[in-house]
Amino acid sequence: MRRSETLLFTSREADGHENETVARTLRAGLVRQFASGRYGFTPTGYRVRENVISVVEREMDAIGGQRISLPSLNDSGIWRRSGRWESFEGEMFTLENRDGKRLCLAPSHEEGVAHLVDGVVRSYDDLPLLLYQVESKYRDDHARNGLVRTKEFTMKDAYSLHASQDSLSRWYERVREAYVRIFDALDLEFAIVLADNSVMGGSRSEEFVALADEGTVSLRSCPARDCRFGVTDESPRNDLSAGDACPNCGSRLEAGDGIEIGHVFELGTRYAEPMGLTIDTVDGGERDVVMGSYGIGIDRLLHVLVEQHGDENGCRWPDAGADVGSLAPFDVSIVPLEYDGDLQTIADRLYEELGTDTLLFDDPDRTIGERFAESDLLGVPWKVVLGNRYRKTGAVELESRDGETRTVRFEEVAGIVG
Amino acid sequence: MRRSETLLFTSREADGHENETVARTLRAGLVRQFASGRYGFTPTGYRVRENVISVVEREMDAIGGQRISLPSLNDSGIWRRSGRWESFEGEMFTLENRDGKRLCLAPSHEEGVAHLVDGVVRSYDDLPLLLYQVESKYRDDHARNGLVRTKEFTMKDAYSLHASQDSLSRWYERVREAYVRIFDALDLEFAIVLADNSVMGGSRSEEFVALADEGTVSLRSCPARDCRFGVTDESPRNDLSAGDACPNCGSRLEAGDGIEIGHVFELGTRYAEPMGLTIDTVDGGERDVVMGSYGIGIDRLLHVLVEQHGDENGCRWPDAGADVGSLAPFDVSIVPLEYDGDLQTIADRLYEELGTDTLLFDDPDRTIGERFAESDLLGVPWKVVLGNRYRKTGAVELESRDGETRTVRFEEVAGIVG
Repeated sequence: MRRSETLLFTSREADGHENETVARTLRAGLVRQFASGRYGFTPTGYRVRENVISVVEREMDAIGGQRISLPSLNDSGIWRRSGRWESFEGEMFTLENRDGKRLCLAPSHEEGVAHLVDGVVRSYDDLPLLLYQVESKYRDDHARNGLVRTKEFTMKDAYSLHASQDSLSRWYERVREAYVRIFDALDLEFAIVLADNSVMGGSRSEEFVALADEGTVSLRSCPARDCRFGVTDESPRNDLSAGDACPNCGSRLEAGDGIEIGHVFELGTRYAEPMGLTIDTVDGGERDVVMGSYGIGIDRLLHVLVEQHGDENGCRWPDAGADVGSLAPFDVSIVPLEYDGDLQTIADRLYEELGTDTLLFDDPDRTIGERFAESDLLGVPWKVVLGNRYRKTGAVELESRDGETRTVRFEEVAGIVG
Repeated sequence: MRRSETLLFTSREADGHENETVARTLRAGLVRQFASGRYGFTPTGYRVRENVISVVEREMDAIGGQRISLPSLNDSGIWRRSGRWESFEGEMFTLENRDGKRLCLAPSHEEGVAHLVDGVVRSYDDLPLLLYQVESKYRDDHARNGLVRTKEFTMKDAYSLHASQDSLSRWYERVREAYVRIFDALDLEFAIVLADNSVMGGSRSEEFVALADEGTVSLRSCPARDCRFGVTDESPRNDLSAGDACPNCGSRLEAGDGIEIGHVFELGTRYAEPMGLTIDTVDGGERDVVMGSYGIGIDRLLHVLVEQHGDENGCRWPDAGADVGSLAPFDVSIVPLEYDGDLQTIADRLYEELGTDTLLFDDPDRTIGERFAESDLLGVPWKVVLGNRYRKTGAVELESRDGETRTVRFEEVAGIVG
């Protein structure tokens, strides 16, 4: 992207938000607030969110997940059938259409998936099945801390369908492992907390909770690498305190705040039964389909990424590996000392070569310091500086987001930052 | 995708829908109806829709468009400010949150974009700007013909912002040309109709209308290739009839039905003015930003594609060129005569080689005829048949969706269908 042809929503002014991560997200211009609990994603925010979604998609597809898209605007019928029209009361946005029909904005899609496959899933052969979507969800919740709790948010929600509890348990494990791979690819510190499953119905349930300065839950978690044991006030072992031994590995638990970023549920037949979702058995009977459901809060992840990786200069983004690379909105910034003459020629050549995930500072009015600051605020992992050194020696300076610099030949740049 | 591990929503039974295109879309299992005017996209339907979106994204990005994502759930405030809270009355879904605040589900985002850039766009240097999103829109409309008119639908909506009417006119033309490239890439027959612009406010406006057996408008259009002249009952030259000379090229106009698939508007200052969206002028004053808005109905495009390209065996999909290829849910089906022994080995090898956009018929229970029929119903452009010929000569049969067959060496397959 040419800086002269884009609008970055970066702001050097503090925006006055008391949560430092929210302030940093707004300063970086990833989102703008529209109303209480509703944010618009700017071009850069959209790019980062798409990168995060690509990681989620990569790992969901790798375990056989198939992406779908279900309507958000639901008739009350399927919700009454599952018994959740009443249980979500007050938390669900409801409305009437012009014919007076009761509708709602779906806060989750267990009913929807059961409806989608109803009559199509008919036998053991059709199962197991893992369907997922990445779409907006709606909850009439009290907004909190920017993207942490909003009324309209992007969720990756997945649903697995099975002929037996055994199959569900295997796939629950499989999705759980994919979640670990996702959050590891995002280089997040998180704990896995045994959760109470009464809201959704069903048996086993765990929450993935990211460590945060200011969170949605109080967490006691194990600091040992890859142990990931944690408890919150709502989990079965909530009597554990900071300093107690981790039941997994014996390390001393640490107390802190956490933000729930994922949740996996064994639902059993809680939804299939009222929704009439059955398969035919070999003896001519029918049995209820067994389901699991699995969610990841995409928008929240952006908040957690900004918090865990960012620094006083702005955002920093991890490299998420195959097919995605850096989560940053741009892979590299090209910063010519002046966008003119020989430096303009070489800057344009490099820009052509590096492709669309590049930010070229070709606008006339900013100082080089302002360009560095803006690139760092966005968390662009590399800056290529084209200046006097290039004129003298044909070499360019390459500076990482963390301030490490090296001098490389012009021809080497694409290989390093690409 | 392995056939044994996926659930195709294909149905050999006619579903009884009186519109043949809707019936074909449902038989191919691309969508399932949830409620009046609301459809869920199955894994195959989702894949096709993503391919269509990729074409739109490719052409929008090529002209400098930047993708964003705005909330659907809007407070009434920005709609009252633009004066559209009242004008959309009855067609807009409105609701109250639990605090009694009036909200709506946005049917379009002129107000939203003005809000997004408010205070960020400050000078001539920040413009022009082209922002777009591909998200759900909501209209409390009477549902009609499957994906043609729904209450919740995916739209590509774009908004351009300018310092002058001149700049708007140039960008209007630019987006209009991108639309022509998009619909050409989808290999659609369509006309461009001068439209009445009173609803959205502003001056110039054109509709892109695809030819259809049963449409949303009556169309008189020019049959000459690339002429694209058309009129509807609502357009300024609605006195033209079938048989009249095309004002563009003199060919005889033909009458038929049409489905509106795109719309471009010069809005002028209709939105910037009430929303207070201004830039500073050099003499210290302020002037209203000039806007354009541009929409493409993504879900509708699926209907039109199924209608214009399909045949009695099901869907057919065009090749949309660079970065996208065929719009089909799969690029190729692998159909072994039996999934066993040497044929299983070779089928698996080919599947590995061809990648994830391949459908491998590895399930035990279907006849080869049923597999062919299912592949054709989905519109997969190629079938690779592994059978006796392979056993005897090492060659495989390659059959196109249109029934052309050729015998090629196993090693050649990837080069042809990949």
